[in-house]
Amino acid sequence: MTARVEFLYLSEEDMIKAGVQDISSCIDIIDEVYKIIGQGDYLMGGVNGNSHGVKLQFPKESKFKNMPLDGPDRRFMAMVAYLGGRFGICGEKWYGSNVDNIEKGLPRSILMVVLNDAITGAPLAIMSANLISSMRTGASPAVGVRHLGNKDSTRLAAIGAGPISRACIRSILTESKSITELVIYDLFEDKSKHLIEQMEKEFGVKGIVAKSTEEALKESDIISVAASRLRPVNINPEFLKEGALILQTGGMTAPDDYWLNSDIVLDNPLMHKAYMEDAKRTGDAENTYKEIMGGNIYSLVDRKELPDLNEFKTLGEIALKEETYTRNKKRFTHFISGGQAVFDLGWSFEIYKRALEKNIGQKLLLWDKPAGV
Amino acid sequence: MTARVEFLYLSEEDMIKAGVQDISSCIDIIDEVYKIIGQGDYLMGGVNGNSHGVKLQFPKESKFKNMPLDGPDRRFMAMVAYLGGRFGICGEKWYGSNVDNIEKGLPRSILMVVLNDAITGAPLAIMSANLISSMRTGASPAVGVRHLGNKDSTRLAAIGAGPISRACIRSILTESKSITELVIYDLFEDKSKHLIEQMEKEFGVKGIVAKSTEEALKESDIISVAASRLRPVNINPEFLKEGALILQTGGMTAPDDYWLNSDIVLDNPLMHKAYMEDAKRTGDAENTYKEIMGGNIYSLVDRKELPDLNEFKTLGEIALKEETYTRNKKRFTHFISGGQAVFDLGWSFEIYKRALEKNIGQKLLLWDKPAGV
Repeated sequence: MTARVEFLYLSEEDMIKAGVQDISSCIDIIDEVYKIIGQGDYLMGGVNGNSHGVKLQFPKESKFKNMPLDGPDRRFMAMVAYLGGRFGICGEKWYGSNVDNIEKGLPRSILMVVLNDAITGAPLAIMSANLISSMRTGASPAVGVRHLGNKDSTRLAAIGAGPISRACIRSILTESKSITELVIYDLFEDKSKHLIEQMEKEFGVKGIVAKSTEEALKESDIISVAASRLRPVNINPEFLKEGALILQTGGMTAPDDYWLNSDIVLDNPLMHKAYMEDAKRTGDAENTYKEIMGGNIYSLVDRKELPDLNEFKTLGEIALKEETYTRNKKRFTHFISGGQAVFDLGWSFEIYKRALEKNIGQKLLLWDKPAGV
Repeated sequence: MTARVEFLYLSEEDMIKAGVQDISSCIDIIDEVYKIIGQGDYLMGGVNGNSHGVKLQFPKESKFKNMPLDGPDRRFMAMVAYLGGRFGICGEKWYGSNVDNIEKGLPRSILMVVLNDAITGAPLAIMSANLISSMRTGASPAVGVRHLGNKDSTRLAAIGAGPISRACIRSILTESKSITELVIYDLFEDKSKHLIEQMEKEFGVKGIVAKSTEEALKESDIISVAASRLRPVNINPEFLKEGALILQTGGMTAPDDYWLNSDIVLDNPLMHKAYMEDAKRTGDAENTYKEIMGGNIYSLVDRKELPDLNEFKTLGEIALKEETYTRNKKRFTHFISGGQAVFDLGWSFEIYKRALEKNIGQKLLLWDKPAGV
């Protein structure tokens, strides 16, 4: 036993070399993490141990000249977790986000992950996590397709043509080989067109640029909604095909009858409970719900039109069952997939192990012998 | 403008080279941070923007074999903040803590700090933070002495002889040149003796090993209480000198009349409010208070025997006033000094700047050009 502590640093380039962009492995890992969530072998922060994370809430205005102000996607966030199963690690993702980054050539969010020994707390790895984050976010709806999809789905619609939507499409097309048609709708048609061309090349699907949400939704078997949480897409259930699978990774609103007529499958009911509790603590839950992915659902739960969150189906529980889940072909199936630090840790740990095997990255010394002991 | 992102990595040895152990500068910086808190030019996490941090709460037992279990000082924690003034940075401290580390030759807690650009969120520095943390913790009661002390204090008592108490003593003796006598009480007399010898050598004070709390308290002008939060020291006000200054950095309980007869000065009322709210959310506030430094005060506030936390004096406001604060010589003055991420950021930023100037540490590349943009 030595008190020397070393850890691995992985830049974004190292992460790419180590395989962070390996979509099908990422889907497998996220599937595994969903099963771990289903079993309960994990911890996150907050009073109920399922908080998404802790956020610096920038004020709308300030008398202090340097204080960062609130704005679109402006935040600084830390998401802590312990992930069990064969992972057995603590760690966190933290990031700063600012829409103005884009004009500087920077990503909107700059993310890093640290993995820590669950027993001693010593760092094992610190890594660039932009690709971890987008990969795990995209993989999550694909795990939804794996367990909730029908083998014969042929048409995928994507609402939103940004980087998260692209990650979702790539994962879903990697997972579901039966899909032959991809239709994309975005407020900016040229973005849809550009993404369609990319996806046609990568996956050999037939691409369609939709002029409206309606056009995208109708006749689609699977709908991936990955629009900005700040500009939620309104989904009109009249345009939806009977029995459609809706995968919500971004902001989305729908009329009450959509939610009441859907089989809703949650990623993690306890995280949504934590969101609801935090929203209630602000003193204006209804308004706060508007900024949260599950907001519509929470309102209906508060009004007792939907049951308590504990009673919803969860993807983890469905994934853990050996038999295949049979989707109700008369109702919509809605899978809501929010961000959870356990996903970041799962995929990061896999890439960390690959980096160690392939000797990628820089070993950094924390101390040879700690000064304080 | 380039999208290249580089940051500085500082190991513990680098931190020492850059001056992390410079006590008097650290006191000045922590004083500056207290003034910034007094002005309100900072942000922390949580609903009220003043949460100490987000914690992974390990369960007392678990059916999962690898899950870390609760135990003395067992936690994984992230503390986020924005610090204004001339600092203008976001960042966080995170750490894992486990009392079993000590037998492995590791510190009980293994801490790191990251500093991020407040606008873009890009990392500026990642550093070993064990010394940051102990230095800023020790400096805080010394700032209390600076603003609440009397120039003629000659006898300092320290309750606790662990590393935090040592850091407090060093800072207080650095700040207050009038102190000629140091008395230490610890449950383990040999620890007191060892620390007394160190302090006699370093500061030329006359050292006394006390056999009891009573012996330490009586005749002392300033009392530094830095015992473990898990084994709070009970302070009997009958043993205290009239007008004594009590600096609470660790666990402490006292009978109600102590608190009612003290001028209580808080480090940050809003952080204590956040502690109280979180304790109430557990459903058993009184019991949760027992594990929190300010627990006795919170109970009295709940019972309305003490006013609302907003009405307490704060060190920041006192420090901001140009005239010297005059301590009431008939009452006790109690200063409670809990951990806040803003202190970690303040001292880390200073050391980061010194490291840059002296070319200490390793530059690490996050990316030359981000993959996702």
